[in-house]
Amino acid sequence: MSILVVGSVALDRIETPFGVAENALGGAATYFAAAASLFHPVQLVGVIGDDFPEDRLAFLSERGVDLGGLERAKGPSFFWSGRYHYDLNTRDTLETRLGVFADFKPKIPPQFRDSEWVFLANIDPELQLEVLEQVEAPRFVACDTMNYWIEGKRDALLQLLPRLDALLVNDSEARELSGEYNLFQAARWIREKGPRIVVIKKGEHGALLFTRDSAFFAPGFPLEEVFDPTGAGDSFAGGFMGWLGYVGAVNEEELRRAMIYGSATGSLVCERFGMERLVDVEVDEVHERVRAFRRLTAFDHPVQALHG
Amino acid sequence: MSILVVGSVALDRIETPFGVAENALGGAATYFAAAASLFHPVQLVGVIGDDFPEDRLAFLSERGVDLGGLERAKGPSFFWSGRYHYDLNTRDTLETRLGVFADFKPKIPPQFRDSEWVFLANIDPELQLEVLEQVEAPRFVACDTMNYWIEGKRDALLQLLPRLDALLVNDSEARELSGEYNLFQAARWIREKGPRIVVIKKGEHGALLFTRDSAFFAPGFPLEEVFDPTGAGDSFAGGFMGWLGYVGAVNEEELRRAMIYGSATGSLVCERFGMERLVDVEVDEVHERVRAFRRLTAFDHPVQALHG
Repeated sequence: MSILVVGSVALDRIETPFGVAENALGGAATYFAAAASLFHPVQLVGVIGDDFPEDRLAFLSERGVDLGGLERAKGPSFFWSGRYHYDLNTRDTLETRLGVFADFKPKIPPQFRDSEWVFLANIDPELQLEVLEQVEAPRFVACDTMNYWIEGKRDALLQLLPRLDALLVNDSEARELSGEYNLFQAARWIREKGPRIVVIKKGEHGALLFTRDSAFFAPGFPLEEVFDPTGAGDSFAGGFMGWLGYVGAVNEEELRRAMIYGSATGSLVCERFGMERLVDVEVDEVHERVRAFRRLTAFDHPVQALHG
Repeated sequence: MSILVVGSVALDRIETPFGVAENALGGAATYFAAAASLFHPVQLVGVIGDDFPEDRLAFLSERGVDLGGLERAKGPSFFWSGRYHYDLNTRDTLETRLGVFADFKPKIPPQFRDSEWVFLANIDPELQLEVLEQVEAPRFVACDTMNYWIEGKRDALLQLLPRLDALLVNDSEARELSGEYNLFQAARWIREKGPRIVVIKKGEHGALLFTRDSAFFAPGFPLEEVFDPTGAGDSFAGGFMGWLGYVGAVNEEELRRAMIYGSATGSLVCERFGMERLVDVEVDEVHERVRAFRRLTAFDHPVQALHG
């Protein structure tokens, strides 16, 4: 059973200290689908304008992404332009033009409605709720959001939370949503509002998984060269959900692996501009990155020493 | 064979969002000794003023710290006062009064000169060099420094580097010393200047170990309550060196364990004001924290899936 993703498909302009990418393929749903489809079939629902070079999405179809829910509307595509600072950790949004995305009303095609896995990428929580009205009985629903909605559409978001299995947000979003600075306490607050699983992404500093019984920390993979972190968070979500869809199980062991697969996928994305690295990445490269994660973090528990 | 530490012993005034600690025991050598002595005997060389309540150090003696190298000089003790911001990650130094520390010339007592393990806590690199002139044939020399010396005493520092086995610095220090933003590249630069082992501490975001053959990442332990991070870096160094002294071996496996023991010790320190937590901590609590690290980061490599 496929993974349904609903969210933005965009054209980006990205400035980093290493150069500029014009008309780069972007959008949360695009990154998510490119990452998740390495592991499991994906169905994408989104909207593009009449200026969108549709062949840019061909690699997704080839990789098992069903674009049957991608509307084409009259007008310009969603456009985002950003500039990264020297440290590549902070960025300024230079321009956002919503274009056809401003009037986006997700319509889930009939053949997508029995999806087992649903990822609500970062869009208006009222629309995220509408998506859930259109799917039949998903087994696992995960969701992303952003400070803009936490501030402006808090009620809709709080209405959404009980309907989620997992919320995936970054640290500043978790803090703003919960009013708690400490991430353990933020996660507890969020879990009390509904989702039994909370994933808090900390960019290059890794990601935390909170469940009823435990906490797990996936480090950020320290790259020798960070080229462009655009889309790393959505690619993390794609790797995470893709892994769960692939193994078809949501338990402590597989959630931890999903965290590492998310981190591995997210770290690969940073090696080139925008989505370039995801276009031709092989799933074996993700597996190899997971092995590198293991080498990077493995230590033997010194059992003898503890009792020596 | 003991661990020799040379550095500051101080009185601190610490402000956090949770309150103020006046006349708190502080100083890099004090934190280091309190942490390292959980695992291995320590010899401390430093200076205190005539205002110093010496009974504050009694717990160190009881734990196996030889204070035979602690001078008492006329004048006020080294005093540091700092205020942490709400997030506990950033702090302002409100006041530093060097007092008797201004004229500190480390004199290594004869009975300390055959130390196998030497830790040069953060002092003037010219004094660090003088310490090395006074010790006979240490097996392992590690060193900390700070931006102040990187800027002001760069030549002495570069002279020191070839004489070190390990440099332990934080990320901003590694970057300033090397002129490289990327921490892999910074570590490579530093290793080329001498120390075969480079540890880069990233505060709550963990610590990286670089050797000739590999990189290792120890996550920051995510605490439910961070109370006061003062001394966490020096306690990390103490746990790191203490572990190496205890096992008496410096190899990839033990270095990784030392990183985790350093992180565990450093995280415990943050649970109370200043050194309070270190005064009565039991080594079993550190072992338990190491086990918690393992639970927090353990994931099974999905071997079947990789070949499925």
